[in-house]
Amino acid sequence: MAKEKDVHACTLDKIISLCKRRGFVYQASEIYGGMAGAWDYGPLGVEFKRNIQNEWWHYMTQLHDDVVGLDSAIFQHHTTWEASGHVGHFSDPMIDCTECKARFRADQLIEDYFDKTGETPSKPVDTMSHEEMKAFIDEKINCPTCGKHSWTDVREFNLMFKTHQGPVATEASLVYLRPETCQGIFTDFKNIVQSNRMKIPFGVAQVGKSFRNEIIFKNFIFRTCEFEQMEMEYFCKPGTEDETFARWRKDRWNFYLKYGIAEDHLNWHHHDKLAHYAKDAYDIQYKFPIGFEEIEGIHSRTDFDLSQHEQYSKKDMHYIDQDDGNKRYIPYVVETSAGLNRNFLMFLCEAYEEQNVAKEGEPEDFRTVLHLDPRLAPVTVAVLPLMKKDGLAEKAKEIQHILKEDFVTDYDQSGTIGKRYRRQDEIGTPFCVTVDHDTLDSSSADFNTVTVRFRDSMEQKRVSLDDLIPFIQKEIKSYVPVKR
Amino acid sequence: MAKEKDVHACTLDKIISLCKRRGFVYQASEIYGGMAGAWDYGPLGVEFKRNIQNEWWHYMTQLHDDVVGLDSAIFQHHTTWEASGHVGHFSDPMIDCTECKARFRADQLIEDYFDKTGETPSKPVDTMSHEEMKAFIDEKINCPTCGKHSWTDVREFNLMFKTHQGPVATEASLVYLRPETCQGIFTDFKNIVQSNRMKIPFGVAQVGKSFRNEIIFKNFIFRTCEFEQMEMEYFCKPGTEDETFARWRKDRWNFYLKYGIAEDHLNWHHHDKLAHYAKDAYDIQYKFPIGFEEIEGIHSRTDFDLSQHEQYSKKDMHYIDQDDGNKRYIPYVVETSAGLNRNFLMFLCEAYEEQNVAKEGEPEDFRTVLHLDPRLAPVTVAVLPLMKKDGLAEKAKEIQHILKEDFVTDYDQSGTIGKRYRRQDEIGTPFCVTVDHDTLDSSSADFNTVTVRFRDSMEQKRVSLDDLIPFIQKEIKSYVPVKR
Repeated sequence: MAKEKDVHACTLDKIISLCKRRGFVYQASEIYGGMAGAWDYGPLGVEFKRNIQNEWWHYMTQLHDDVVGLDSAIFQHHTTWEASGHVGHFSDPMIDCTECKARFRADQLIEDYFDKTGETPSKPVDTMSHEEMKAFIDEKINCPTCGKHSWTDVREFNLMFKTHQGPVATEASLVYLRPETCQGIFTDFKNIVQSNRMKIPFGVAQVGKSFRNEIIFKNFIFRTCEFEQMEMEYFCKPGTEDETFARWRKDRWNFYLKYGIAEDHLNWHHHDKLAHYAKDAYDIQYKFPIGFEEIEGIHSRTDFDLSQHEQYSKKDMHYIDQDDGNKRYIPYVVETSAGLNRNFLMFLCEAYEEQNVAKEGEPEDFRTVLHLDPRLAPVTVAVLPLMKKDGLAEKAKEIQHILKEDFVTDYDQSGTIGKRYRRQDEIGTPFCVTVDHDTLDSSSADFNTVTVRFRDSMEQKRVSLDDLIPFIQKEIKSYVPVKR
Repeated sequence: MAKEKDVHACTLDKIISLCKRRGFVYQASEIYGGMAGAWDYGPLGVEFKRNIQNEWWHYMTQLHDDVVGLDSAIFQHHTTWEASGHVGHFSDPMIDCTECKARFRADQLIEDYFDKTGETPSKPVDTMSHEEMKAFIDEKINCPTCGKHSWTDVREFNLMFKTHQGPVATEASLVYLRPETCQGIFTDFKNIVQSNRMKIPFGVAQVGKSFRNEIIFKNFIFRTCEFEQMEMEYFCKPGTEDETFARWRKDRWNFYLKYGIAEDHLNWHHHDKLAHYAKDAYDIQYKFPIGFEEIEGIHSRTDFDLSQHEQYSKKDMHYIDQDDGNKRYIPYVVETSAGLNRNFLMFLCEAYEEQNVAKEGEPEDFRTVLHLDPRLAPVTVAVLPLMKKDGLAEKAKEIQHILKEDFVTDYDQSGTIGKRYRRQDEIGTPFCVTVDHDTLDSSSADFNTVTVRFRDSMEQKRVSLDDLIPFIQKEIKSYVPVKR
């Protein structure tokens, strides 16, 4: 374990800088001054994000016999969002300055006021009515933009993006961009039961884009208007929801441990204030450089969603339980809802280290390294010729071609071998394969072998080319996260 | 090879019915009467679609050293779509009936007229001006909805979906849903070159959702308003675009052969009419039950896109070619643009067979089978106990648990073994593993073995449980498409 003074702290700025510099994340439409709340994932970012998503999918659908997948459309019939409550209630309170026309979230203005003044609110801000917020702002707060003091009333602003299908913008042609993926799971519930002969209890998992017209974006990819969710709705018999809830809390927590998140970087946040239909709700929070923040919500939602869709669609949403005397019921639901982009940021923060690798007595020598689980790392194997000449480059290329069917590979021949190791460390490549003169020298004891250099320990091992693929496969499977 | 009379033809209706019945594809928001132009992919559909996407990704980015990936946002700055030409030109001609207010694509009305009457147009419909279309419709066509005859002028209707970011709908807050994924590749071009030290020639591949506000949807998932594209832009030195174009035409054609499409089911369609900037363009068409239709376009686009973005953004889009005396140029582009949903439909149609499996002299006995490549099949291995009792179900479950880390598995214990094989054939499961009494009987020569039954040949083979995983892995790698 490194000494305290030999490790620099991870900050969000360092992560953002690394992401841009090495091609993990760019600002969307940067050449046009940027698109607020949207980000593009570059060559390394897209591999890393796909890996997180694929591991989640593998874990949820392939390893759980009782969970199947779904990919419902972003466009759903608008009544879906009336039934779900989003048309009526998915909104933030908004207030405008009548002088300069700037617009603010009213609750946020008040929160900021208390943060700044250190005063204590007489009641929690999220319980204030529109009238109370308006009165408070009128009394205490000047416009942060123009400094004047003339406010409109507080009004609700719905967070769903709206568009219209077909050439005419009418009520009938109105389409919302989904604000969450899960409603497609509820509307398809009966189809899934029938076509796949599902028996309660079972879950349906889905990954996909969602959209929220947030007034304020913040913290890089943490809160954006376009984002990806990894959600699962687990349908169970009424009365079994508490044990189901406990099971999935444990299961989802373990997912993060499995991929290398230190347990003391995770936290359970219990919701004190529940939606009227909800029975219980917890968030899993991760210790980001900006503090503990939500990465996943686990909610016990009763039969609310299916009942709402039954009411609005007039379609029967009951399940006939053949294992329980053909009892008819609307299943209860436990939801696990994780943010893919937040997972992306979490795994980067967790993996990031600036580490002094100088030997005792030598001057400081810091490397930046991402200690990513090899299953998540954007590049699995980098193939490096010790030098370009003497046929080493050609041999290295040949080895890359053998490896690339099974692994995401990189090839790099420019700069010293030390510099190239550092470049791979910074993007989290767990294995560097180095080709040297012995590899080609049939008189050497090391003929037909390469050096495999390990990212975390920086140790090196000679491995026969004939064993290279199974060797790397085994190392991936037996990977142990580095202790820090 | 089966005799002609022993095979029933594949039709689109049969595919749609199978998709709904077995959980490949449902109508989106079906409980609310459906959402036009949008489809939900069920438990089998999502696995199948993910497999196609992952194989494309693996083929394009992992096997090609010179292609990297990207995942740009759906929301891009609106100037992106001015530069690309979509704001100005991405539209269809539209006409309304003033009596009943029904709206039609003017060119489609005229095409339908010629189809119905058998008359020959005096000039191609797609070269008619708005005035010519209006005059023709005024003279010849009654409203298909109300039968009356009173038309508005022909007007252009832009196919991009529009929404607004933030609470106020103004010009400044206008956001389009991207009508194609590739523009993000162009706007990020310089970022990718810098962050990943790319050297010309290289390609950037992307998979993602695109949206088009089509007036008419048709043929199931073939033409929809929300769909997924698999696109690649290959950047090359001016003067090398013709050989690059030839290379990618061959390469993309071979992709389809690799995954089992019969070469005589594919066709090159050459574009006679090119966009003003385009140098050449071909579509790969597949012989769907509805006829040959486009599944992928391969276009030689010159430096049009990067030049447009340079002009609109005032940002330098030139590349400095260090391998050619620091020559400065805007790269030429060859694009390969495939439809994921069309690939989905193509692979289903190609795989579908209703096959008479009766022995000579016996009555007809048809099975429905999907001869999918095992890398694409939604389920790779089904584990079936011969019967539920005698511990066979428990043993089968145990085997499923061993297999599921490496394969997508299914478990089925209900009905006769013959019926269960048929159910798996219909969804394209290449391997059924059957557990029988010998599996458990330590006195049997077949102790600790299972039967592996092959979907295409229906042959069976005993395999030791110790060898089962590598046996299946080897069979996947050495799969040979069935001759039909």
